[in-house]
Amino acid sequence: MFLIGLEGFADPAVLAPWPHEIIRILAAGRIIAALREHGCQDLVLVGPVRRPSLLDLRPDAEGARILARIGRAAFAGDDGLLAAVIRVFAEEGFRVLGVHEILDEALGPVGLLSRTAPDAVAMADIRRGVAVARALGAVDVGQGCVVQQGIVLAVEAAEGTDAMLARCASLARPGRGGVLVKLVKPGQDRRTDLPTIGPETLRGAAEAGLRGVAFEAGGAILAERDTAIAAADENELFLFGLGPDDLSERGENS
Amino acid sequence: MFLIGLEGFADPAVLAPWPHEIIRILAAGRIIAALREHGCQDLVLVGPVRRPSLLDLRPDAEGARILARIGRAAFAGDDGLLAAVIRVFAEEGFRVLGVHEILDEALGPVGLLSRTAPDAVAMADIRRGVAVARALGAVDVGQGCVVQQGIVLAVEAAEGTDAMLARCASLARPGRGGVLVKLVKPGQDRRTDLPTIGPETLRGAAEAGLRGVAFEAGGAILAERDTAIAAADENELFLFGLGPDDLSERGENS
Repeated sequence: MFLIGLEGFADPAVLAPWPHEIIRILAAGRIIAALREHGCQDLVLVGPVRRPSLLDLRPDAEGARILARIGRAAFAGDDGLLAAVIRVFAEEGFRVLGVHEILDEALGPVGLLSRTAPDAVAMADIRRGVAVARALGAVDVGQGCVVQQGIVLAVEAAEGTDAMLARCASLARPGRGGVLVKLVKPGQDRRTDLPTIGPETLRGAAEAGLRGVAFEAGGAILAERDTAIAAADENELFLFGLGPDDLSERGENS
Repeated sequence: MFLIGLEGFADPAVLAPWPHEIIRILAAGRIIAALREHGCQDLVLVGPVRRPSLLDLRPDAEGARILARIGRAAFAGDDGLLAAVIRVFAEEGFRVLGVHEILDEALGPVGLLSRTAPDAVAMADIRRGVAVARALGAVDVGQGCVVQQGIVLAVEAAEGTDAMLARCASLARPGRGGVLVKLVKPGQDRRTDLPTIGPETLRGAAEAGLRGVAFEAGGAILAERDTAIAAADENELFLFGLGPDDLSERGENS
């Protein structure tokens, strides 16, 4: 096992206990050389990477060659870029796996994980959130939104889930609190950038005055599951894995 | 001419010079009585109203009756609620007009209004913003987004345009700045809640490091036009009215 931390994104303290190297994101020559030096054949992409400015990339020679291969995809949505990155790794002879392929129970399951359950108002908010997240995913933007009493309080783009939750406290109306909905984008390659729910997400949702979090079962990483569920229960939030029935169009606006 | 200011939304100092009354939003009986007392037949709805919590409405008797008539629409998106409000006013014998029907040149025109013009990168960002705003509008959320170098930095929901712009400075990448795109929702009744661009929007865009603002020509109120254009020029921003050609699907992703 060998870790490559992307400079400016990976936390060196987290990587320190393991064999690793920290490399610039577009020093692709160095990245591929390091993977080969350590005999790596299978790769797993983990954690969020804020897309760098094209003017700030400073690719090495191999990076410049790969950038040319990626080409226009670098200007498309995140999915286009990630799909191109996976393609390039495959062309270089590596196999890119999803985190769920090597880590049992990484993905959240269908159904209720918390002691608190969503009531009818929360279920209606979840349905509206699903419709909104779907529409956003179709144009390759974000994966999350917050809905309260039928109103979309916030939609996630580059700021990420935690920052979106942080602004919801001031946007919330009195009365029953809202819900956070996180889905996979339609057609998203599940090897890249799956939505992640963890204890911090639950704490942020509680601070935002929300009543729960709903995620796409089998499509979101549930990090530190026991701690996340405990955080939900401590704050009397629901934590709910949406199955195929919950995600069908049928329920929408009903 | 008679103004009704909605309590908690209208600024009393702005209304002070004119004949007016300030009334709670769901004191519908009082609102309709005041309109009749002053011989009003035509109504214009102006300015943003943050949707109140359903638990905080305190309707008067007429308001309760009207709420029952609005019914489920109150839980749908903003458009559903506004359409229901217009329908109720019509049933009460009033005519609801768009601000553009009584105020010449209220709506921004097609084409470039500023000295600075969008370059090819900005035009590509505008096209992506149009696709995103359309997808959002289709689920009755927001009307705006910010795109930089192909990346959607922010999407507008309940926080409004100014707050969305305020968070973009910290989300922006180095290199060419982004663009704000504001559209009318597909099928939106133009008598209600049209997107509004004014001098503050241009100043906010400049502070966010953007390079310009594009709006749907004939579908966005351009408030204080001369001052807004001057604010664009002072900050070397473009201010661009998107016509039917700019809004066609054809240009998307090309």
